[in-house]
Amino acid sequence: MSAVPPQRWEVRVQRPIAYDVIKAPALFDPASDLLMSFGNPHGRRFVVVDGTVDRLHGERIRGYFRERGIEARIQVFPGGEEHKNSEIYQDIARALDAFPIHRRDEPVIAIGGGVLTDVVAFVAASYRRGVPHIKVPTTLMGYVDAALGIKAGINFNGNKNRLGAFEPPLAVLLDRSFLPTLPRRHLVNGVCEIIKLAIIRDAGLFQRLERDAARAVATCFSEPAGEAILDGAIGGMLEELVPNLHEEDLARRVDFGHTFSYGLETRHEHRLLHGEAVLLDILVSTCIAQARGLLSAFEADRIFALVEALDAGLDYGVLDTDLMWASLLDRVKHRNGLQRVPMPTGIGHCLFLNDISRAELDAAVLALHSRIKASHEPAIEC
Amino acid sequence: MSAVPPQRWEVRVQRPIAYDVIKAPALFDPASDLLMSFGNPHGRRFVVVDGTVDRLHGERIRGYFRERGIEARIQVFPGGEEHKNSEIYQDIARALDAFPIHRRDEPVIAIGGGVLTDVVAFVAASYRRGVPHIKVPTTLMGYVDAALGIKAGINFNGNKNRLGAFEPPLAVLLDRSFLPTLPRRHLVNGVCEIIKLAIIRDAGLFQRLERDAARAVATCFSEPAGEAILDGAIGGMLEELVPNLHEEDLARRVDFGHTFSYGLETRHEHRLLHGEAVLLDILVSTCIAQARGLLSAFEADRIFALVEALDAGLDYGVLDTDLMWASLLDRVKHRNGLQRVPMPTGIGHCLFLNDISRAELDAAVLALHSRIKASHEPAIEC
Ligand SMILES: NC(=O)c1ccc[n+]([C@@H]2O[C@H](COP(=O)([O-])OP(=O)(O)OC[C@H]3O[C@@H](n4cnc5c(N)ncnc54)[C@H](O)[C@@H]3O)[C@@H](O)[C@H]2O)c1
Ligand SMILES: NC(=O)c1ccc[n+]([C@@H]2O[C@H](COP(=O)([O-])OP(=O)(O)OC[C@H]3O[C@@H](n4cnc5c(N)ncnc54)[C@H](O)[C@@H]3O)[C@@H](O)[C@H]2O)c1
Repeated sequence: MSAVPPQRWEVRVQRPIAYDVIKAPALFDPASDLLMSFGNPHGRRFVVVDGTVDRLHGERIRGYFRERGIEARIQVFPGGEEHKNSEIYQDIARALDAFPIHRRDEPVIAIGGGVLTDVVAFVAASYRRGVPHIKVPTTLMGYVDAALGIKAGINFNGNKNRLGAFEPPLAVLLDRSFLPTLPRRHLVNGVCEIIKLAIIRDAGLFQRLERDAARAVATCFSEPAGEAILDGAIGGMLEELVPNLHEEDLARRVDFGHTFSYGLETRHEHRLLHGEAVLLDILVSTCIAQARGLLSAFEADRIFALVEALDAGLDYGVLDTDLMWASLLDRVKHRNGLQRVPMPTGIGHCLFLNDISRAELDAAVLALHSRIKASHEPAIEC
Repeated sequence: MSAVPPQRWEVRVQRPIAYDVIKAPALFDPASDLLMSFGNPHGRRFVVVDGTVDRLHGERIRGYFRERGIEARIQVFPGGEEHKNSEIYQDIARALDAFPIHRRDEPVIAIGGGVLTDVVAFVAASYRRGVPHIKVPTTLMGYVDAALGIKAGINFNGNKNRLGAFEPPLAVLLDRSFLPTLPRRHLVNGVCEIIKLAIIRDAGLFQRLERDAARAVATCFSEPAGEAILDGAIGGMLEELVPNLHEEDLARRVDFGHTFSYGLETRHEHRLLHGEAVLLDILVSTCIAQARGLLSAFEADRIFALVEALDAGLDYGVLDTDLMWASLLDRVKHRNGLQRVPMPTGIGHCLFLNDISRAELDAAVLALHSRIKASHEPAIEC
């Protein structure tokens, strides 16, 4: 004991985060050890599977555990944004209570789209204050974005991802064999995030998309050109995420397309997919950037042409400047008092804006509407 | 692009954790800058206060913010174990939505006992995937244990702390001026955790308790001898917690008294306080340790004498070996397959047992009952 009692105690610790994102073709081939190599290879496993994935791939998944003699509880939960809520979160936690796992070496396995992996990762983050989990994305959105980082969450009180955690997985295992059953709309949904990434940081990836995206979608990314797009997207996404895993820096380039979209997808949960909302935001932002002279007409045209070629079937009817402005204001809270809106300055580069005005947003949405109208009018014969 | 596509990407990051535990007498004196020195000193504050604390100290707390011209939303929630649940958790999250704070520089402030700080810290951990929070413990249990570390949580599905997070606070501010309004039973409740700590690691602290604990309780730790006990307890607790903040090592000396107590306090939520359950566990464990020859009769007697002197009013009627055995089995899941039960080997030292048998537990509870009975029988005149 010192004579003078201490007035403060300092807690200073470094917490290591370490996980691998691994390309894992044939992940559910019973001969493959990979999935069971995380945690006790002979332990039990609590496996949460998206309902559609279970219908289409469930036999393969069950066969894997059966043939390896692993006691696995396969728990099926629906995907889709409307199921990303606290009821499903609690249901999964209760199911976990009913199949008690060892706290450290029997990782929870999540197999599904971004909704399922986001919810399960949040359950894993909070169950007993954290049990390990593995993510196996089955949608393109999961494959190139949702499953790669450490963000987990559920929608709450009418707000997207309002509750969640930063929870590193034990591993992310990428098996492209899930993609062929994905509806075209959901493939395009994932491509939207790749377009985002290409615009803000990777002109080469953008060129690849211009050349190969339509065919890659048609072949469910099963061919080498599609695989190269995926590799570029995953590598690029991780380079953006890793130095800022916990979003200490609130100016995030990957937030491009995630400012006005937030309100749109919350309001139109049943009508818009996440990537579609992001793509609408990208197009509005492109109009703002062009009006400010940050983007040339030629570059803006390339962005619109790529979207046109993808045949994304965007629903421009949802654009509502009141809603989008409210969304920006919420993002200002989320970004601690500043807009911090990423804006492209040419393809492959961006900066951050903090002074977007309501009038600018209104003008951009008008400009977008007239562009769309023009592109759908028959060319004038002369 | 390399010719061979990458087969894996490695994510390796160190996350720094840094916070101070600060002795802060006069925290709510409007002249004190300390509380507002964390985050934007002119920003808004969302303050969650325990209902009893609000009744007894609310005017002082409100006056602080009022006199400093700070826009503060004081949100009152009840303490007590039965309120440590997902409904209160969600209510707090909704209240936070209704008073939107900046994500980074307007920390949530939790003022209350272990229940309130555990729940609020879990809300802070998950709201927008984490907003900063400050803990101001108002019970002795919070002061020497619950508020010091990074464990947050709520009870769920009939299990204590089944959902939660490891969430470092921005700061822990210790103001002893809350303690005088605490009922004696709750002061003793906090002393139980100090006894635990003393037995497993600090013979000097144990001696201090033998000498000063009764008077410290009577004077609500307002005198120097009481303050010295608190300093020793806090410093010792932090030395145990900090090297193992995330419980990577599941053999934790501070888990002494936290094996059989878990089931007891879950079953008897309305009858037993956390520290009381811990103290019952300590006494049963003392009997096990003595029966094994780990603890001498003299040392066991010292432990029983200290508890007797405290007049803890323990409810031995709750001891139920079936329940306590089930509790041990749950802890085995929690401790990843091994019992890892800390057991004293003399006062100030301990080891871990992995082979406690049911018969041993039964015998220890019998031994405890006959000890209690003997100590309450009139001494035989001779
Ligand atoms: N955590 C992050 O960093 C992050 C990043 C981006 C997006 N997200 C989240 O991801 C979610 C969107 O993800 P999503 O688009 O994958 O949605 P989703 O999980 O709802 O999946 C879309 C649909 O596809 C079905 N499905 C899944 N795999 C299939 C397969 N292989 N074959 C056929 N059907 C299949 C699902 O049942 C669902 O109906 C959003 O909630 C978004 O917030 C998270
Ligand atoms: N996070 C951790 O590491 C950790 C460690 C130990 C205990 N805990 C948790 O702490 C909880 C127990 O904490 P607790 O004993 O403080 O319970 P508590 O928060 O319920 O407080 C006890 C009672 O005292 C009242 N109260 C609080 N401050 C008061 C004051 N200054 N004057 C008068 N009354 C006051 C409360 O309203 C409540 O009725 C348990 O849930 C336990 O799991 C957590």
